[in-house]
Amino acid sequence: MKIIDGNIASPLGFSADGLHAGFKKRKKDFGWIVSEVPASVAGVYTTNKVIAAPLIVTRESVTKAQKMQALVVNSGVANSCTGLQGMEDAYTMQKWTATKLKIAPELVGVASTGVIGDLMPMDTLQKGLSKLVVNGNSDDFAQAILTTDTKVKTVAVTEQFGRDEVTMAGVAKGSGMIHPNMATMLAFITCDAVISSETLQLALSQNVETTFNQITVDGDTSTNDMVLVLSNGCTLNQEILPNTPEFDKFSAMLHFVMQELAKKIAKDGEGATKLIEVEVINAPNSLDARMMAKSVVGSSLVKTAIFGEDPNWGRILAAVGYAGVNVPVDNIDIYLADIPVMLASSPVGFDEEDMQDVMQADAITIVVDLHAGDSVGRAWGCDLSYDYVKINALYRT
Amino acid sequence: MKIIDGNIASPLGFSADGLHAGFKKRKKDFGWIVSEVPASVAGVYTTNKVIAAPLIVTRESVTKAQKMQALVVNSGVANSCTGLQGMEDAYTMQKWTATKLKIAPELVGVASTGVIGDLMPMDTLQKGLSKLVVNGNSDDFAQAILTTDTKVKTVAVTEQFGRDEVTMAGVAKGSGMIHPNMATMLAFITCDAVISSETLQLALSQNVETTFNQITVDGDTSTNDMVLVLSNGCTLNQEILPNTPEFDKFSAMLHFVMQELAKKIAKDGEGATKLIEVEVINAPNSLDARMMAKSVVGSSLVKTAIFGEDPNWGRILAAVGYAGVNVPVDNIDIYLADIPVMLASSPVGFDEEDMQDVMQADAITIVVDLHAGDSVGRAWGCDLSYDYVKINALYRT
Repeated sequence: MKIIDGNIASPLGFSADGLHAGFKKRKKDFGWIVSEVPASVAGVYTTNKVIAAPLIVTRESVTKAQKMQALVVNSGVANSCTGLQGMEDAYTMQKWTATKLKIAPELVGVASTGVIGDLMPMDTLQKGLSKLVVNGNSDDFAQAILTTDTKVKTVAVTEQFGRDEVTMAGVAKGSGMIHPNMATMLAFITCDAVISSETLQLALSQNVETTFNQITVDGDTSTNDMVLVLSNGCTLNQEILPNTPEFDKFSAMLHFVMQELAKKIAKDGEGATKLIEVEVINAPNSLDARMMAKSVVGSSLVKTAIFGEDPNWGRILAAVGYAGVNVPVDNIDIYLADIPVMLASSPVGFDEEDMQDVMQADAITIVVDLHAGDSVGRAWGCDLSYDYVKINALYRT
Repeated sequence: MKIIDGNIASPLGFSADGLHAGFKKRKKDFGWIVSEVPASVAGVYTTNKVIAAPLIVTRESVTKAQKMQALVVNSGVANSCTGLQGMEDAYTMQKWTATKLKIAPELVGVASTGVIGDLMPMDTLQKGLSKLVVNGNSDDFAQAILTTDTKVKTVAVTEQFGRDEVTMAGVAKGSGMIHPNMATMLAFITCDAVISSETLQLALSQNVETTFNQITVDGDTSTNDMVLVLSNGCTLNQEILPNTPEFDKFSAMLHFVMQELAKKIAKDGEGATKLIEVEVINAPNSLDARMMAKSVVGSSLVKTAIFGEDPNWGRILAAVGYAGVNVPVDNIDIYLADIPVMLASSPVGFDEEDMQDVMQADAITIVVDLHAGDSVGRAWGCDLSYDYVKINALYRT
């Protein structure tokens, strides 16, 4: 596998673009991805009981058509908690796009992110759609889907499958409300491999637990989260089938793309100054390890301590303790940026100056060794800063 | 029931005091409650897997002796995550107190709150204990148990049981790490009723779910939480027995004291500027209602919005949706400080100026009407402010 300097339109047969339509004041707020041919599609959606209209429409179309050819996304207005009008608007968004592209409506995915509860300004949408042209600047797509994100989040890789080179690319938006099981997160992944929607769903589902579902920014789960993977078969390689070495290779490729996007989302959490990576090792099983890692990375007290560059490892052990995992807690080692701070569940002294040095890094790794098995779990998050409060206290107004 | 201007030593036969021993730099940090005679005792303890040494010692003694006569508490050092030495120190704390008071060690409860991971400074403890005298200023006890709390938290009530007047009083400390199922919270309740330890435990257990377990400050659950109720029988009234009108009266009294302490803890959460009360009504059952209320009051996005005086009700609905409760979410009404903001799960317009006025209050009530039954659940919390971050980024150093 090779990391390339590409974007969401790097896989064969895809194009993407973004522009300012007017959902937001000045920034780009409307984008699209289009495939030359209908692509196989797989998706995972928010676990929130309250599901935004565009997700309902997209999920329904994916189930019905089992293919997707185009995807339109706006940022600024989430079209969530908008009742029947919101549903109608999401269907209209799908229909207008289909008409513009001269394809069937159910081949169009729609996604919205931004303020909850406001109705979609349909004239703004129409204005955006009127400028939709296939073949554009896909870096603008990465910009157009952002809300309070400070950076675009993209990754692209290639891998050899026999004589064919398959390209896969991902783009995401994250920021606030990132937590278990899909939060206000949108991630779109394109690929040019030949793979059925069913096999694609298998690969997506088996990788989501260890990647996107292991990041947390503030514990809130949004109504609009969605990950969609499109693979259009344009490389004309052999079809990738389950239970083959090719599937494993494809799955590893997808895992890498998803994990990179997940880490980029965590690092760019609202107000974040540092990426936090927690690795729980020697656990009885990987589910327990992941739950514990996520408990630590999600602790407000750990997050504020890391923001303050304070090696308050007691809070780490406390978060291990309330993870809801039945593991003995009397023989735990904790390492903060490779410096042991607790061995066999007892504090160990460390050089305060060395610690101050490593705590200044913009990525902090916490390792928790349970000495209770051989499984590993990882989770990613960010520190909790003044800016998180500032951004979220004043978001709506 | 009558609220009186009393304190933890108001029930007959109790005394309490507090002083500065040196666990903290300047503030009072060591206190005790002593009963003239061994009292019936009931307790609930943290659900964190990592349990601090003083809790292990106290719980063990309560189980063994089924009585308690004295309680010593220090603030500044939590004696948590301190390994075998921590256990030894907690036993020593119990033994030294017993020797000083000339009672059996298992009649002494010990509690510690403050920084996790540091060993107890035993010379400081000895210094504090050397000044322990029965009959002191019980307002100083309320001071001595605080950490980052800004206010003492006390409540006292009386109730007639036949010709006898029973007095009950409570004192608590709260602040950070307040969350489900006992967080860094200490609450001590004294009473002079005649009641067995078993019946007292029954009354405590049936009220803890709707009071202390319904407050949240930051989602972290501490290693040191404990609620202890002591009732010494000094009124010489009839014994209160289960399944009697007297028991119901006693339980209502205890519920009131616990709820008042819980609300005071929520209101004084670290960095809090506002108390948030969430009431979920017309729910299918009270457990679901409580889970939902707690999900809303614990949402970082709701908390920051309230801090910003922003009526961002979409975040409230989102938190209802991820509460993990299986309730239809298509016919929900939401009221923010009595102003309807959502009816039948659709936004309703409101007067922005009226809303700005009510959002300035220092207590904000959120009502969520599910139209799905007749049960009610309440939860209390506080907003998330810059000061929360400040306090917790710099706590240890």
